[in-house]
Amino acid sequence: MHFASDNWAGTHPKIAENLNKHASGFASAYGTSNLDKVVEQRFNEIFEREVAVFFVATGTAANSLAQASVAKPGGVTFAHREAHTIADEGGAPEYLSGGARLHPVDGPLGRIEVDNLKKAMAGYNNVRAGQPMAVSITQLTESGTLYEPGEIAGISAVCRENGLPLHMDGARFANALVSLGCSPADMTWRQGIDILSFGGTKNGCWCAEALVFMDPAGAEAFPYIRQRAAQLFSKSRFIAAQFEAYFEDNLWLDLARHSNTMAGRMADRIAASGNVRLAWEPRGNEIFAIMKNTTAAKLRDHGALFYDQNAPASESHLVGEGETLTRLVTSFATLPEEIDRFGELIA
Amino acid sequence: MHFASDNWAGTHPKIAENLNKHASGFASAYGTSNLDKVVEQRFNEIFEREVAVFFVATGTAANSLAQASVAKPGGVTFAHREAHTIADEGGAPEYLSGGARLHPVDGPLGRIEVDNLKKAMAGYNNVRAGQPMAVSITQLTESGTLYEPGEIAGISAVCRENGLPLHMDGARFANALVSLGCSPADMTWRQGIDILSFGGTKNGCWCAEALVFMDPAGAEAFPYIRQRAAQLFSKSRFIAAQFEAYFEDNLWLDLARHSNTMAGRMADRIAASGNVRLAWEPRGNEIFAIMKNTTAAKLRDHGALFYDQNAPASESHLVGEGETLTRLVTSFATLPEEIDRFGELIA
Amino acid sequence: MHFASDNWAGTHPKIAENLNKHASGFASAYGTSNLDKVVEQRFNEIFEREVAVFFVATGTAANSLAQASVAKPGGVTFAHREAHTIADEGGAPEYLSGGARLHPVDGPLGRIEVDNLKKAMAGYNNVRAGQPMAVSITQLTESGTLYEPGEIAGISAVCRENGLPLHMDGARFANALVSLGCSPADMTWRQGIDILSFGGTKNGCWCAEALVFMDPAGAEAFPYIRQRAAQLFSKSRFIAAQFEAYFEDNLWLDLARHSNTMAGRMADRIAASGNVRLAWEPRGNEIFAIMKNTTAAKLRDHGALFYDQNAPASESHLVGEGETLTRLVTSFATLPEEIDRFGELIA
Amino acid sequence: MHFASDNWAGTHPKIAENLNKHASGFASAYGTSNLDKVVEQRFNEIFEREVAVFFVATGTAANSLAQASVAKPGGVTFAHREAHTIADEGGAPEYLSGGARLHPVDGPLGRIEVDNLKKAMAGYNNVRAGQPMAVSITQLTESGTLYEPGEIAGISAVCRENGLPLHMDGARFANALVSLGCSPADMTWRQGIDILSFGGTKNGCWCAEALVFMDPAGAEAFPYIRQRAAQLFSKSRFIAAQFEAYFEDNLWLDLARHSNTMAGRMADRIAASGNVRLAWEPRGNEIFAIMKNTTAAKLRDHGALFYDQNAPASESHLVGEGETLTRLVTSFATLPEEIDRFGELIA
Repeated sequence: MHFASDNWAGTHPKIAENLNKHASGFASAYGTSNLDKVVEQRFNEIFEREVAVFFVATGTAANSLAQASVAKPGGVTFAHREAHTIADEGGAPEYLSGGARLHPVDGPLGRIEVDNLKKAMAGYNNVRAGQPMAVSITQLTESGTLYEPGEIAGISAVCRENGLPLHMDGARFANALVSLGCSPADMTWRQGIDILSFGGTKNGCWCAEALVFMDPAGAEAFPYIRQRAAQLFSKSRFIAAQFEAYFEDNLWLDLARHSNTMAGRMADRIAASGNVRLAWEPRGNEIFAIMKNTTAAKLRDHGALFYDQNAPASESHLVGEGETLTRLVTSFATLPEEIDRFGELIA
Repeated sequence: MHFASDNWAGTHPKIAENLNKHASGFASAYGTSNLDKVVEQRFNEIFEREVAVFFVATGTAANSLAQASVAKPGGVTFAHREAHTIADEGGAPEYLSGGARLHPVDGPLGRIEVDNLKKAMAGYNNVRAGQPMAVSITQLTESGTLYEPGEIAGISAVCRENGLPLHMDGARFANALVSLGCSPADMTWRQGIDILSFGGTKNGCWCAEALVFMDPAGAEAFPYIRQRAAQLFSKSRFIAAQFEAYFEDNLWLDLARHSNTMAGRMADRIAASGNVRLAWEPRGNEIFAIMKNTTAAKLRDHGALFYDQNAPASESHLVGEGETLTRLVTSFATLPEEIDRFGELIA
Repeated sequence: MHFASDNWAGTHPKIAENLNKHASGFASAYGTSNLDKVVEQRFNEIFEREVAVFFVATGTAANSLAQASVAKPGGVTFAHREAHTIADEGGAPEYLSGGARLHPVDGPLGRIEVDNLKKAMAGYNNVRAGQPMAVSITQLTESGTLYEPGEIAGISAVCRENGLPLHMDGARFANALVSLGCSPADMTWRQGIDILSFGGTKNGCWCAEALVFMDPAGAEAFPYIRQRAAQLFSKSRFIAAQFEAYFEDNLWLDLARHSNTMAGRMADRIAASGNVRLAWEPRGNEIFAIMKNTTAAKLRDHGALFYDQNAPASESHLVGEGETLTRLVTSFATLPEEIDRFGELIA
Repeated sequence: MHFASDNWAGTHPKIAENLNKHASGFASAYGTSNLDKVVEQRFNEIFEREVAVFFVATGTAANSLAQASVAKPGGVTFAHREAHTIADEGGAPEYLSGGARLHPVDGPLGRIEVDNLKKAMAGYNNVRAGQPMAVSITQLTESGTLYEPGEIAGISAVCRENGLPLHMDGARFANALVSLGCSPADMTWRQGIDILSFGGTKNGCWCAEALVFMDPAGAEAFPYIRQRAAQLFSKSRFIAAQFEAYFEDNLWLDLARHSNTMAGRMADRIAASGNVRLAWEPRGNEIFAIMKNTTAAKLRDHGALFYDQNAPASESHLVGEGETLTRLVTSFATLPEEIDRFGELIA
């Protein structure tokens, strides 16, 4: 019962197989191979426009270099207080952007609230406070919720008014996409997303992260930014090979759909149980559930792996005495049997 | 006839196979898995001491974060003028170390000369000039030459006198090792190397680079430095899996020995030809050869891939009118037939 | 009626006079002159111990380089949400410390609350969140309040438990000192302050800011840090000359006492008026007063200069409909007549 | 006999007097006062166009922030090997520009040679090497020589071809100006200078350095860059007051003329002496003279202050056995009697 994180899963067989297929032979290095070019073209098709795509080593790198690509002196980027880029990246966005500040914005369940965003921005725009530089949202959020396309457009409207680029951290992009049932274009640039951290690693790749500039004109300096950050792979074709298989026959969407389905199955089991309750409605592959400490201990005794989670301040009332908030993450590799076993234990 | 670079080769079958073997199943993320731990232990055995090992995405990352780990305000690192870290890393060492300077030191054929190093250092050590921070050498050098162990000890003596750490860029560590026929310990810490960029990518891995601190005490802050640079893989076990196979039954040494042997075979063919001559004696898997421009063109017409190279100032007299200096690199995947075909073309 | 800021005032005549006295003649540059040395010795006497003193150009430089001097990778400094270093320094502390984060801590009236500090710290100390690096408090605070010596000791106890240095932003150090009636040593190192931004500019100097390390052993790298930040004056003796006069016959304490007395006089006038009320009790030379918008307009029509102030969230209930919170700052140059005139206008 | 450096001199009486004149009274802070505005206007007049002027604390700050204002990822600035910005600024340009590299260019007597500049640039302009970012020249150079206006135009032509801004370090701007007998405009933007470090400190100010953007459009982000570097003075009007007096009745040109005249007088005495010889022809207020070690010792015994200087490699043949190259700097405060006394001692 592996519900600790989707990055505890391995590599999907079709992706592993494609890596093998490309393992032999020679190809030019540093992102110049035919396979790199083919995959770049695939991104164009997927996003229904010409985009600029850059592979990097980690999601943190994608998020951080997104900031670097729009850096300003005294620059301030606005993100949700619980966003990965603020809470989990060890200062990389600040460091790799040359000292930008990340300003935490509040909102329920991992989602920036437009009014809070406006208020946060209002304090800046002078030399002593600093100047707004970008907004970053996460889709799926860290709370397993998501922004409807119209909500993204609402945030991007604030960005446009203030002349700011809008970045999306898409570490779980595919999970959000299949949950919303919309196209990649509809979830991104059509709502005003300028730069996307496109994550494949959590959804069945081994290591496949890309930064996507919806307008290639904004990416002209990025080859230098990536190299300066030591994020240019010599055998880049092996990232490309993962993405090739990932996109083939919509594997990526199938894998995300599976994860989400498993999460839905778990949500059903939780709702049906008397002992555990959903903290809030899950929208992708992350479930937040409240259970007695004793239940959590029992589950772990039986081999279930999952993390406790600090409740955000706004939700702390949900968790009672002797209870804990837990995060349960499904993945492409989650088996229905694991869910069912979990369901039995909490029934 | 692929002689452009050893990073144009792919992944050795045994390494690809081990990646497959570990592709399924779940493992804890961010370098904490059992496999990560097993491989760390292998590094201890290989270096005959307890070392601290950190996987990173690229050789440039290893070199740059080595600098970051010893950074000082106004710090200056000394490296050979043609060192990869000065000539080919796009400012990453400067950026990731927070603005350190790389001071180029001269010496014939890619090797720092001790007297030049001393002279270069003498200009520093005051607030206005800056303070020496580290020395970095490359083994194999960019000229395909190497430092004998005693020569490394000579440079490390200068470091010790000045209280400076000594870093080795080992992008082609294995090629140097089998060429010298000594142990990893004898080529590193026994001669005073403190930090090693240990490269596996050019020698048959897909992406396997590690920074090795010979004294773990010097690495206490490094987990933060790596995370801040966005170089911590979530599915780190897949780097570990590559290294596991790389070290199994001394595969790594066999692969390097093959590369070097192929280079030796090529050197013999060149020496025997009337049309091409060795610029200097190769010591690993990089050959520098001088040929008529017409010969280079003919070779390329027949499908040989290799780069022209600017001769270092000290060697520019070697290259005559109408001639060019070329770099020819062999790899684990080079076939004797490729060499022989090359030999025929220049005979 | 100049109550906009104490840095709108000029230079005290005795300080100007001493600058003149030292204007002619030659002296060695970059902080090495006799006068520099004499003044460094004066700092030792004032703090009753050997300290290390470094002149810098601005208070922001002092605060920022304090952070640089204790920088760690992924480092996080804790300061009050309204602290100058967070709200008014345009990203300098982040930039000059190589990307450190400033984490805002709440507490009433500009003062960090120990429990909030502990809670803020608890979230760090792992690679993904970052590591605590320092705590910074402001004395006088931005709200014109101050920390009692015992309260400083309470914060420093948290620092000690966590192995962190404690910095004091003393832009209005003298105002706090005479208000508390204690010695410089009692307000700093005896309570656990490690590094002090010692400000003279707001209290009658032209440009005289110093960073004081209570333990010189912690300052060994600082000459390099200051030079790297371009903060080493060539004619440093002219900073020294200001400090020499500033300390002579306790001029600095007299000037601060005057400012505070003028603020007290204003507080009395406000308390006595029916139209304006103190938002909270002033402790130094900054008064926060609530008045009708119409009163504020009238005062400005009559030539009073002062700023409106956003009320901190915790105090926003104090300000009624149609009212504004204002900040009124007195200085060494404030005349009783100005206060009296102000008093008449609000009577 | 103070010939150590022009920054050992103090403040010219007229500048000190003007500081006194503005010492009392109130003025708005952070560069917004009337006096600040008046002086900015004076810069426009002096340069015969609208320029953007920013006061900073040191010449190193001006040079470093010039780099910051044109920074690019992987950026490389070209300057003479002996330029202050490379040899004497302790890494500030690298640090404050976010990690740019300074590439040393050779040329006789402190002056960049166009061919060397072109060669140096040719090695860049790709991701792995980095990209050219700016060229910086020094006027007067560190060797006391200067560029003729046409020579500046020659360097700026290379900049234009490569789309690069041209910076001038004018720490001794006035000395160069009166030596050439041309206008500030003719020595700067009319020859293609884009950004100027305008130094007043070495020529009779106490602390007066400015960064001048010949085209204000290039300076839009600079207020943020300066603040982020902690270089914005609160009582900025006292920098303005120095410049006001400095420019009044062309005081600045008179002071520089005096320095240069004193240097000329010294050069004459040296030429007439049998014991000391000029290393090369001085063009401003810096003299490089070669003398026997015994002569240098004798001069110092008699109270002459001056520094020994390492000869640049290209000039080392000038200095014989038992001789030393010395630097002798005159200033606005040098007295003819000092020169004459020096002349007697070497006669």
